[in-house]
Amino acid sequence: MDKILRINMGADGAPAAKTEPLGDYAGFGGRGLTSAIVSKEVPPLCHPLGEDNKLVIAPGLLSGSTAAMSGRISVGCKSPLTGGIKEANSGGQASQMLGRLGYAAIVLEGLPQDDTLYKILINKDGVEITDAGSLKGLGNYDTVDKMKTEYGEKIGCISIGPAGEMKMSAASIAFTDMELRPTRHAGRGGVGAVMGSKGVKVIVIDDAGMKTRSPQDPDKFKEANKAFVAGLKKHPVTGEGLPAYGTNVLTNVINEAGAYPTHNFQSGQFDGASKLSGESLAEMENARGGEGSATHGCHRGCVIRCSGTFYDKNGNFLTKQPEYETVWAHGGNCGIDDLDAIAQIDRLDDDFGVDTIEIGATIAVAMEAGLAEFGDAEAAINMVKEIGKGSHLGRILGNGAAVTGKVFGVERVPVVKGQAMPAYDPRAVQGIGVTYATTTMGADHTAGYAVTANILGVGGTVDPLKPAGQIELSRNLQIATATIDSTGMCVFIAFAILDQEDTFQALLDLISSFTGASCTADDVNALGMKILKLERDFNAAAGFTNKDDRLPDYFKKEPLSPHNVTFAVTDEELDQVHNY
Amino acid sequence: MDKILRINMGADGAPAAKTEPLGDYAGFGGRGLTSAIVSKEVPPLCHPLGEDNKLVIAPGLLSGSTAAMSGRISVGCKSPLTGGIKEANSGGQASQMLGRLGYAAIVLEGLPQDDTLYKILINKDGVEITDAGSLKGLGNYDTVDKMKTEYGEKIGCISIGPAGEMKMSAASIAFTDMELRPTRHAGRGGVGAVMGSKGVKVIVIDDAGMKTRSPQDPDKFKEANKAFVAGLKKHPVTGEGLPAYGTNVLTNVINEAGAYPTHNFQSGQFDGASKLSGESLAEMENARGGEGSATHGCHRGCVIRCSGTFYDKNGNFLTKQPEYETVWAHGGNCGIDDLDAIAQIDRLDDDFGVDTIEIGATIAVAMEAGLAEFGDAEAAINMVKEIGKGSHLGRILGNGAAVTGKVFGVERVPVVKGQAMPAYDPRAVQGIGVTYATTTMGADHTAGYAVTANILGVGGTVDPLKPAGQIELSRNLQIATATIDSTGMCVFIAFAILDQEDTFQALLDLISSFTGASCTADDVNALGMKILKLERDFNAAAGFTNKDDRLPDYFKKEPLSPHNVTFAVTDEELDQVHNY
Repeated sequence: MDKILRINMGADGAPAAKTEPLGDYAGFGGRGLTSAIVSKEVPPLCHPLGEDNKLVIAPGLLSGSTAAMSGRISVGCKSPLTGGIKEANSGGQASQMLGRLGYAAIVLEGLPQDDTLYKILINKDGVEITDAGSLKGLGNYDTVDKMKTEYGEKIGCISIGPAGEMKMSAASIAFTDMELRPTRHAGRGGVGAVMGSKGVKVIVIDDAGMKTRSPQDPDKFKEANKAFVAGLKKHPVTGEGLPAYGTNVLTNVINEAGAYPTHNFQSGQFDGASKLSGESLAEMENARGGEGSATHGCHRGCVIRCSGTFYDKNGNFLTKQPEYETVWAHGGNCGIDDLDAIAQIDRLDDDFGVDTIEIGATIAVAMEAGLAEFGDAEAAINMVKEIGKGSHLGRILGNGAAVTGKVFGVERVPVVKGQAMPAYDPRAVQGIGVTYATTTMGADHTAGYAVTANILGVGGTVDPLKPAGQIELSRNLQIATATIDSTGMCVFIAFAILDQEDTFQALLDLISSFTGASCTADDVNALGMKILKLERDFNAAAGFTNKDDRLPDYFKKEPLSPHNVTFAVTDEELDQVHNY
Repeated sequence: MDKILRINMGADGAPAAKTEPLGDYAGFGGRGLTSAIVSKEVPPLCHPLGEDNKLVIAPGLLSGSTAAMSGRISVGCKSPLTGGIKEANSGGQASQMLGRLGYAAIVLEGLPQDDTLYKILINKDGVEITDAGSLKGLGNYDTVDKMKTEYGEKIGCISIGPAGEMKMSAASIAFTDMELRPTRHAGRGGVGAVMGSKGVKVIVIDDAGMKTRSPQDPDKFKEANKAFVAGLKKHPVTGEGLPAYGTNVLTNVINEAGAYPTHNFQSGQFDGASKLSGESLAEMENARGGEGSATHGCHRGCVIRCSGTFYDKNGNFLTKQPEYETVWAHGGNCGIDDLDAIAQIDRLDDDFGVDTIEIGATIAVAMEAGLAEFGDAEAAINMVKEIGKGSHLGRILGNGAAVTGKVFGVERVPVVKGQAMPAYDPRAVQGIGVTYATTTMGADHTAGYAVTANILGVGGTVDPLKPAGQIELSRNLQIATATIDSTGMCVFIAFAILDQEDTFQALLDLISSFTGASCTADDVNALGMKILKLERDFNAAAGFTNKDDRLPDYFKKEPLSPHNVTFAVTDEELDQVHNY
């Protein structure tokens, strides 16, 4: 995994691929690599859909190995949604497969000279770029089906739906899961629009004939991996909560904490939350003859297995088990308490290729604008269908909450840097509010998941309703996360490594024994800070200042029920997050 | 004119008005006063449509007097279009009337507690705020007609159309002209949306019983005014060009210079330009029994009289004589060479209450996105009608070129700070490019009209195709303009005062004799710099940096025909504009 595959879509004649050594980028993987390439090669003031932007797809440092949890992948570019640097993270098959094929990154560059749509096949023999005109306008599901017919069942796909083709700012990039379904998404920041602008419909990966990457010290690696897995199994969140109910285990927890954004962030508790909970979802799935709980990993090598399968009322596969964020975005945030409706929307989102968080937040803003009543599931489904059609309304919604708020003159629009907030109200989880405000990514819970100490009692305890301690909490998590996102590891390993010193040591040993170079806690910190600095420098050069590291004004002015709290972390404190 | 009228739309119960002395704002008028109030009282990070924004309407320092050309008015707020400070300037009756009523400014504050729509009557007896529910959704023409029925023919109106009510970012505020028609607009930056957010449909002004403001030294004032008028009459632009053909005299000039943005800024000359020229327009008007040339001033006291009346094919009044910017925006920029169609659109723009520059630029972006062919006048008319209807497409277009470009995934979007460029391509008039990039207002030709020395040979000569000298030119014009915009004077006086020292001296004498305090050239400079500094400080606090003082990338990369030039002023040079 020592080479970069560069594909110039704007080369004379036809797109052209070449591989080159990692060079200066050696030591970077995943988010570290996407951010290093974007910050070095993309002019910060370029148009995100223009020829100077690049789309970088990078497995993590450990991807392609047998390290547990190492199959996450990073997608980076200048974001059409935020205007800043972007890393969107996904599960799926591609990370392990690209790792085994030896690619540290795929970089899509330039712009095609006409509106030809392409597909790219990557296998042990090299790269083949061919016309994909017949795939134009297809959803991700149909696209993957056609690729299966053409290339067989042993492939993995990276694709965009109509939203990406239409270059919508909420467009995602789909990664097939282990069942070869396009259910895992690099969702955030409009990365799908950038892939669309490059004229690439689907990248098909076939790692047949390639081997698992070998660690430098196989014995130590095996031992460390064992300890690491044991640590994950031992921790109540990664060993019990997530496997039992998936990420949706959070619905009851967050709602009880009064931090569940309801009706477009108008209140902190939703009457219908219990109908949306992981517990209710498991019951429903059991009754329909499904697995009844989280039984899938989103990538090969996952031992937490927090995903699952959703069957419709007739027992037919509809979509993956909807994640907590998705259930919230299309559920309580829109006043909808119907899991079947939410699962339908999840399927549509995945098929059209849009970010479920952004679209849920967008529909809630549209509801606040009066386009539908809160709670009207049918209206919500129809709005998402408009996105797929690319109608004028669909174009508005497909460009996210900020554009929708602007178009309909709505003041209450929960975004930071143009990106919609996820499923935790920053007034009642002030640590996550600090992360929303100050991460380089726009509002993003995964960039520094302070819900840990604020709500879950993981990695210490910090009162979620007060500013004290939130800056340090978010800072440390942002730094650690930047490194985790570079390893290819799932961010959920954080629960166990925050609480269990031996599990953290096992992770360090895993990295050290794989790379052959010693990796200490200090190294983890240093890498995280280095990545954040690259990202912040890019954003500054793109015109961001500390004024962009703020929540919308109304979070400081409108108290949130039931705790009657406003966001109380001061601007001066926010400016200290990246002081390290 | 020593008091401020503050109307709190969000007061308990019903909106409440109060007057207060100018206080700290003494010495400021027009743009100086709007920018001083906004920069002191509006939190820079507030939502432009929220309760913390304020809409300030201010006549100039000389408005309400008999000084020639002193009837322009400034409208200020935080702009929904740019997110920065905004001053939009208009002619019409209001400036002189408010001046005579003694108001230096009207400030609309707060937000109404429900969706009641209000009208405000201001006369010698005070202020009356009443329900205007019956005006909901009306165009500016019908609104004014109803006000005439209710209050008689001696009023002046300041109103918004449906676009303002819908809080669209391209919404303008209409000011009635001397024929009591809503043809003069504070067009730029979405000021109409802010008026809409305040729940105010129309402000009716009646200055019956009030007298012209008296100068401190009447004899000197009279003498200075005479010299000033003589100077304007003597200069070829203000004495001949503008009176003969109106602002549209520029069509042939700019097209011949290869600086006429055509087909959404794709080239610099338009085949159909001669059909759009001021000369053709005059001929058409003559043939229809109209005045045949520019014969109207936009405000009482105008001696240039660059406006006129447009009659349709049947000889009925349709709209004012369309301005150069309007003819260009809906003409060459959209590939349309039909003056009747353009005049129809001008009427619709005025009636719905939207900025003709922004909307013309927006339609061209929509055409580039494939919504219609360049040159399809019927499609353009229909698009504008969608704005009035508030359909989903209309909502998109009514929010301007930047939003439209984002929604439809277009890269070539000619905006700075989110505001569309006017009728001069910055590659072929590099001085105006410097102004577009660096003014506090977003792309705005009036903020520093470098077309003077670049094209017209006024105030010196600077090669329009080269960077040399453009920084100084734009800087000096931006400073001078900020002061002119504070006096209530029309910016067109600049032609004469730049070229004729005695006319500039007459202006200084006019101000000195009116206020009783000596006004020198240094004072004019100092005031201009002070205003620009207030505005730039506001923008900085709202998150703007020098990265916002840039043209879109493509102006530096795509050469413009026929001169085959790109914008060549460097970023480092641009950063020197406000170094004074």
